[in-house]
Amino acid sequence: MIPQAPPGPLAEGGLRVVALGGIGEIGRNMTVFEFGGRLLIVDCGVLFPEDQQPGVDLILPDFRAIESRMDQVDAVVLTHGHEDHIGAVPFLLRHRPNLPVVGSRFTLALVAAKCKEHRLTPNLVEVAEGGRVSFGDFECEFFAVNHSIPDALAVAIRTPAGVVLHTGDIKLDQLPLDGRLTDLAGFSRLGDDGVDLFLVDSTNAEVPGFVMAEREIGQVLDGVIARAQQRVIVACFASHVHRVQQVLDVAVRHGRRIALVGRSMVRNMGIAADLGLLHVPEGLLVDLDEALHLPEHEVLFVSTGSQGEPLSALSRMARGDHRQIKIFPGDTVVLASSLIPGNETAVFGVVNELSRLGANVVHQGNARVHVSGHASAGELLFLYNAVRPSNVMPVHGEWRHLRANAALAVATGVPPDHVVIAEDGVVVDLVDGRAAISGRVEVGHVYVDGLSVGDVGDSTLSDRLILGEGGFIAITVAVDSTTGRAVAPPTISGRGFSDDPKALDEVVALVEKELSHSEAEGITDTHRIAQSVRRVVGRWVADTYRRRPMIVPTVIPV
Amino acid sequence: MIPQAPPGPLAEGGLRVVALGGIGEIGRNMTVFEFGGRLLIVDCGVLFPEDQQPGVDLILPDFRAIESRMDQVDAVVLTHGHEDHIGAVPFLLRHRPNLPVVGSRFTLALVAAKCKEHRLTPNLVEVAEGGRVSFGDFECEFFAVNHSIPDALAVAIRTPAGVVLHTGDIKLDQLPLDGRLTDLAGFSRLGDDGVDLFLVDSTNAEVPGFVMAEREIGQVLDGVIARAQQRVIVACFASHVHRVQQVLDVAVRHGRRIALVGRSMVRNMGIAADLGLLHVPEGLLVDLDEALHLPEHEVLFVSTGSQGEPLSALSRMARGDHRQIKIFPGDTVVLASSLIPGNETAVFGVVNELSRLGANVVHQGNARVHVSGHASAGELLFLYNAVRPSNVMPVHGEWRHLRANAALAVATGVPPDHVVIAEDGVVVDLVDGRAAISGRVEVGHVYVDGLSVGDVGDSTLSDRLILGEGGFIAITVAVDSTTGRAVAPPTISGRGFSDDPKALDEVVALVEKELSHSEAEGITDTHRIAQSVRRVVGRWVADTYRRRPMIVPTVIPV
Repeated sequence: MIPQAPPGPLAEGGLRVVALGGIGEIGRNMTVFEFGGRLLIVDCGVLFPEDQQPGVDLILPDFRAIESRMDQVDAVVLTHGHEDHIGAVPFLLRHRPNLPVVGSRFTLALVAAKCKEHRLTPNLVEVAEGGRVSFGDFECEFFAVNHSIPDALAVAIRTPAGVVLHTGDIKLDQLPLDGRLTDLAGFSRLGDDGVDLFLVDSTNAEVPGFVMAEREIGQVLDGVIARAQQRVIVACFASHVHRVQQVLDVAVRHGRRIALVGRSMVRNMGIAADLGLLHVPEGLLVDLDEALHLPEHEVLFVSTGSQGEPLSALSRMARGDHRQIKIFPGDTVVLASSLIPGNETAVFGVVNELSRLGANVVHQGNARVHVSGHASAGELLFLYNAVRPSNVMPVHGEWRHLRANAALAVATGVPPDHVVIAEDGVVVDLVDGRAAISGRVEVGHVYVDGLSVGDVGDSTLSDRLILGEGGFIAITVAVDSTTGRAVAPPTISGRGFSDDPKALDEVVALVEKELSHSEAEGITDTHRIAQSVRRVVGRWVADTYRRRPMIVPTVIPV
Repeated sequence: MIPQAPPGPLAEGGLRVVALGGIGEIGRNMTVFEFGGRLLIVDCGVLFPEDQQPGVDLILPDFRAIESRMDQVDAVVLTHGHEDHIGAVPFLLRHRPNLPVVGSRFTLALVAAKCKEHRLTPNLVEVAEGGRVSFGDFECEFFAVNHSIPDALAVAIRTPAGVVLHTGDIKLDQLPLDGRLTDLAGFSRLGDDGVDLFLVDSTNAEVPGFVMAEREIGQVLDGVIARAQQRVIVACFASHVHRVQQVLDVAVRHGRRIALVGRSMVRNMGIAADLGLLHVPEGLLVDLDEALHLPEHEVLFVSTGSQGEPLSALSRMARGDHRQIKIFPGDTVVLASSLIPGNETAVFGVVNELSRLGANVVHQGNARVHVSGHASAGELLFLYNAVRPSNVMPVHGEWRHLRANAALAVATGVPPDHVVIAEDGVVVDLVDGRAAISGRVEVGHVYVDGLSVGDVGDSTLSDRLILGEGGFIAITVAVDSTTGRAVAPPTISGRGFSDDPKALDEVVALVEKELSHSEAEGITDTHRIAQSVRRVVGRWVADTYRRRPMIVPTVIPV
């Protein structure tokens, strides 16, 4: 079993690794490496909340384990520009504004845009594949990696304790759109020299085989758009430059102009075009107003909203309340995107509304319009065989993914006891070439809700879940503070309990009876009176309705 | 577009069809047929709530359109025993206790068990494939249908207005475990005579090809269980008799005894065995206590909980709080079940917890341990070509499924204007051999929450969503009813708002200031005072936190 106690001091010459997010879950990736009293961070992303975390905007990695050591951090290295790898950088920089933020050109452009929204000016250090940069005792070497965003990197970290290779998010598309292959040759060379600890993306470890090439989607899109007689709307992630590139290429072939819809789509594609990562033929892009006046078979909208986000352009079109774009029977809508677990209801809600309006809706469920950005099992085997690591630590995944990834490592010959399955907060020490769990530090969920970070915690969420399931019944009583006698009839109100205005009529008499009873017993303590009111109303509602609303008694002494 | 007005009177000699549930959604199937002033109902099921319907237990079909005509109903015909087809029968019988409830032997056994829980004694009419029974002018003929539960039927309804064929839930497994094929020959014969309206299951219309044969799962299970060294737990639906049969057969081959876990599993398999639908070798079944004392490689548990239901046996094992069954590293858990949309988070939560405990978890995502019960597109084409209907009405599906099913009908030669896509409440009249939409009746969501039906409505759900996202801030003020002067400091409390005990400290002064202001203006109306308190607190919380809790002011005149 995983130990619960904090680890002892790190052995002289050893390297310590701990994830403050991203293991045992998918999102908020953040791994901290420690050598000789100094720290290096790889990635600092956010996690999007689930049903059990209602009302929360974002979940951050838990910085507590390093909060008092911020001055010992040499740098934060970002593998790529997705939110689950960069989204928490502004929150980290609040602790250490001048921390070097290391990444590729496109990654840093996205970080800069994000920091600008937070009114921060980060200390950016640009790197590229093939480059080496040292931060204290951490010598970092960067490798090109293929993923669902351009300019992704893996990072090898050389320390006196050994060599670590962290894949970041990775897949092995052998015909990538930009020709930038995952540098398997580089990994092999590194493996020849010896990799002591290999941290490997687990997201798709359960999926057998290989991810289809991104460019095959272009052919599917071509078929769909060739058949379309009217307007076409393609929704995808606003950072998926290659997906958008393929849409642009298809549009050109079929004589359609392109309008970008959605703030992040416009911003990111602008950045990508500026950096030469997106090739936009002259005159292809038109603005939305112009697009609305083009003949319907000469226009294609590239939009955000592929995850069914209720405020996105696509959701508004589906509900019929987008100010400019109205869906007509015969229009074509393509969701060229993954279906992130947890978003199924929202996404299919949008698909159904669009279908109801008569649109021809093409999505992952009925056409090959999406491929994953993460290596399937077959690709992971290639990685293990190229790197031939001494020790393996699966990262980026829930437990089912971690176990599956570990099994793949073992299948390629890594001894089972050299595969370390950790989770957030579990401390792994690499000492004398051997990785092992040495303890655990506390890693909780840090919630961002509105403007505040961290004030919403388990107690608030537990109350929200109770309120969301059953609403509340509030009973307000004013009592004479010397006699405990009620000075006015109790006020009863329920919200989220029933649509029936008479649902709580019986409660007044019930509470009055209880109050006379308390008074007769000479109880004047408002807390005790409140407790007895809560008890009697709670029992009544359970017996009468078999429901469990929150019971909120307020007793005011006057 | 679909008309919004109720239809005019049904034409003389016409047949009217309206779904009170089950079209435009998956679940609570209920279709009402009307001829000559009499009604026949096919199916009466429940729908399970989504995120947007928090706290609700079940959703019923909306009976309002027929509530005043219950005495005109000749019978309710049930195609099979799944909850989404029979679950609302007890609620229908409250309106008409003696209504004939028509179905196959297994279906009626499940209905009887359900009615017993509701203390109802239904008027059951048993039918079987090949049989014909008349209810008034409705002559029903029943056809064997293959589905994920035994003894399913399709029903042809002959009326003077024409012949209707309703598939119920259907697929075309050509090697069914019980040898009971969907009666395609019977459908063809009916088609020779002419089918005027064909109501067809749309659930899998978007899925290309054919559903794999149920018996292929047996081979996969055999491989999994052959490799298992320790305990095996297989979770599946408690009504999926054939799935359980295969588990039993595999257990026998590998020398394991079986214990059934979960109330509905025990009950349903008892019924199935009594009816000869489940073959249980002598001595195979043991009770749970006995199973716990068997060597771990000689036992297999068949359990409920495949959808991640939090109170189910499997979820409790995953959380480590099942009283009897504890999961050890190396145990094997198989989820031989579908992943119903909306349950992903719960199911994968269970898979992750089991993986964390070291179990080898086999599920739909990593092995072929489930096949759907609904015909894919390829099978639906067989149905259309066998029946050659004059008019088609896709049922059992969300809009995306209805559209896909309609396209399949058209592909087999049904003229597009003879394919009627309706949704709940849309009235379709079959007159002179032609089906067309004639209007719409109101069909809303009828919620069961605890003991009450219908008192939880949109207003309550909307409050629950607000409370669940942001909690509430309650402000209680006692004022002198003649002067409007506060007689005690305001009481402020928040639930589901913040874990920080000081989060609302500023509010007291804010409210006191607002109250003095009201008093100075001579306002004594408690409603107006409450409004101004709500306004000032709402603005403060939006500015300070950028959150939207419910603001609940209570002003008590004393």
